[in-house]
Amino acid sequence: MIRSAIIGYGNLGRSVEKVIADQPDMELVGVFSRRDSLDTEARVLPAADVEKYKDEVDVLFVCLGSATDVPEQAPELAKSFTTVDTYDNHHEIPKHRAAMDASAREGDNIAMISTGWDPGLFSLNRVLGAAILPGADQMTFWGPGLSQGHSDAVRRVPGVKKGVQYTKPNPEAIEAVKKGEGADLKGNECHLRHCFVVAEETGNADEDAKLKEQIRETIVTMPDYFAPYETIVDFISEEEFDRDHQGMPHGGQVITRGQAGTSGHVIEFGLELERNPDFTAAVQVAYGRAAYRLKQAGETGARTVFEIAPYLLSSEPLDDLVAQKL
Amino acid sequence: MIRSAIIGYGNLGRSVEKVIADQPDMELVGVFSRRDSLDTEARVLPAADVEKYKDEVDVLFVCLGSATDVPEQAPELAKSFTTVDTYDNHHEIPKHRAAMDASAREGDNIAMISTGWDPGLFSLNRVLGAAILPGADQMTFWGPGLSQGHSDAVRRVPGVKKGVQYTKPNPEAIEAVKKGEGADLKGNECHLRHCFVVAEETGNADEDAKLKEQIRETIVTMPDYFAPYETIVDFISEEEFDRDHQGMPHGGQVITRGQAGTSGHVIEFGLELERNPDFTAAVQVAYGRAAYRLKQAGETGARTVFEIAPYLLSSEPLDDLVAQKL
Repeated sequence: MIRSAIIGYGNLGRSVEKVIADQPDMELVGVFSRRDSLDTEARVLPAADVEKYKDEVDVLFVCLGSATDVPEQAPELAKSFTTVDTYDNHHEIPKHRAAMDASAREGDNIAMISTGWDPGLFSLNRVLGAAILPGADQMTFWGPGLSQGHSDAVRRVPGVKKGVQYTKPNPEAIEAVKKGEGADLKGNECHLRHCFVVAEETGNADEDAKLKEQIRETIVTMPDYFAPYETIVDFISEEEFDRDHQGMPHGGQVITRGQAGTSGHVIEFGLELERNPDFTAAVQVAYGRAAYRLKQAGETGARTVFEIAPYLLSSEPLDDLVAQKL
Repeated sequence: MIRSAIIGYGNLGRSVEKVIADQPDMELVGVFSRRDSLDTEARVLPAADVEKYKDEVDVLFVCLGSATDVPEQAPELAKSFTTVDTYDNHHEIPKHRAAMDASAREGDNIAMISTGWDPGLFSLNRVLGAAILPGADQMTFWGPGLSQGHSDAVRRVPGVKKGVQYTKPNPEAIEAVKKGEGADLKGNECHLRHCFVVAEETGNADEDAKLKEQIRETIVTMPDYFAPYETIVDFISEEEFDRDHQGMPHGGQVITRGQAGTSGHVIEFGLELERNPDFTAAVQVAYGRAAYRLKQAGETGARTVFEIAPYLLSSEPLDDLVAQKL
């Protein structure tokens, strides 16, 4: 059995707990949290003591808030544990990878970074499509759906009580790509970012209005996350938020259109997700199995989804996969 | 530059030649054939002399007829070359893998087996989907499109002058899977196999009819290829064949529906191919790059698509893939 643990118990951590319970070859040692008690039957352990458990845990699933916590805390964790994270700030991934690689090598561990579906399975399909059809046009569409990383970024803005962000494909962009006219479209031209925010209330109408304007400005100018996109920020009541924005659907597709020989081909990978953190957790846990196996084989350092042979994700023996699925 | 060669110059071999020409890091040493002259500007070399060229070739693309030639000839080739094949008789793949593994180890080579799209990319997505959503329902639909391996098998039947086979999804099966009622459907219930055959003519009407009946019987009872399926064999004139059956479209999709945590998810991988052998060749050539790299790294033995880390397929450096596609 692969002895697993979770650090961070938000949406992702709770989903990872459920996903681990469905694996035939994994057991959950405990959940590390800064809080004393959690709504779980798992063993709850203080996050501050995590290093003391290094010999009891084979794989640590890092489920901290991505925007700031992962880059700050994961490198230290990688010195003591084989880790799997879902760090999703695409522009900062090379920096995160370098930090995790150094820490993991120092501790003789594997640091599996930026798993999930984007980054993750979508990235894998971008590499696959481009390798098979060199020079192809490739476009990724997200949504319509809720983005965890971006919602987290919204919630960290001072004055935000509750917040969510939905990514929506731009319908005109989809049409262009389907006609083969999408080659020059940038990601930020293909999507809108729509935020729904409940602001803190001061009891003073003027100050409330000023705070909302500050929140809007902080969101729409946030580098990487929102600045490059058309971003809509709508302020709503807490009642409306609780009623309409509790679901976490998501999905999207990676489309590759290109030539091989003298003919044209389309490769498409699509996801329809009822609840985004559950699926992200499912991918993270599968890559945890791969990380465990690499560590067992004596490998060390950071790994991306590009470097993982697919059979390492499965609990089935390779011979069975060859006989049943090849 | 990766020094590449092709053995076998049918549809697949011709497509591999074109695909190699589009790779930035490959050159074509020559085409090995049993025929003296081919319609190509590449160097044509006698297939019987192939072993003499072992030191001039890094990767040999095996483009022989799959139904019988590959299992008979590829193991001998793997003793002298790092090979890539597209062997597609799913039931016989474990046997082929064992033979290729023994030969490749004997020659310190890599034998990359059963590449293409099914087996190949579809297999990869079956493993990926099942690893991420354990216990999911999974179904592969093919077509509508022409199947190279099955057409080849038809053409090898005594008395067949020309022949093609189209695989068609069973529309009722697709509906069932979409409703979540497809869990018990078998592959042979999801598809029909439709063959169009031009029979040799004897000049005697009775003997012609007898020959056609023999051909039909040989096809529909052929183990693995046709016996498990509803198979239709239509005899047509050579004129009709040449007019209506020269294209090679194909495609299909792998659909995985399953639970993660407490929610349901759909993973879909689809292909729309204008010309099947061109796309099969594109996949084969990309896995040729991976085979070359494994051989350079000192590895030996047979490998399936399940064992190949995706970045090995790309001519781009890993650091660039991480920066641009993760």
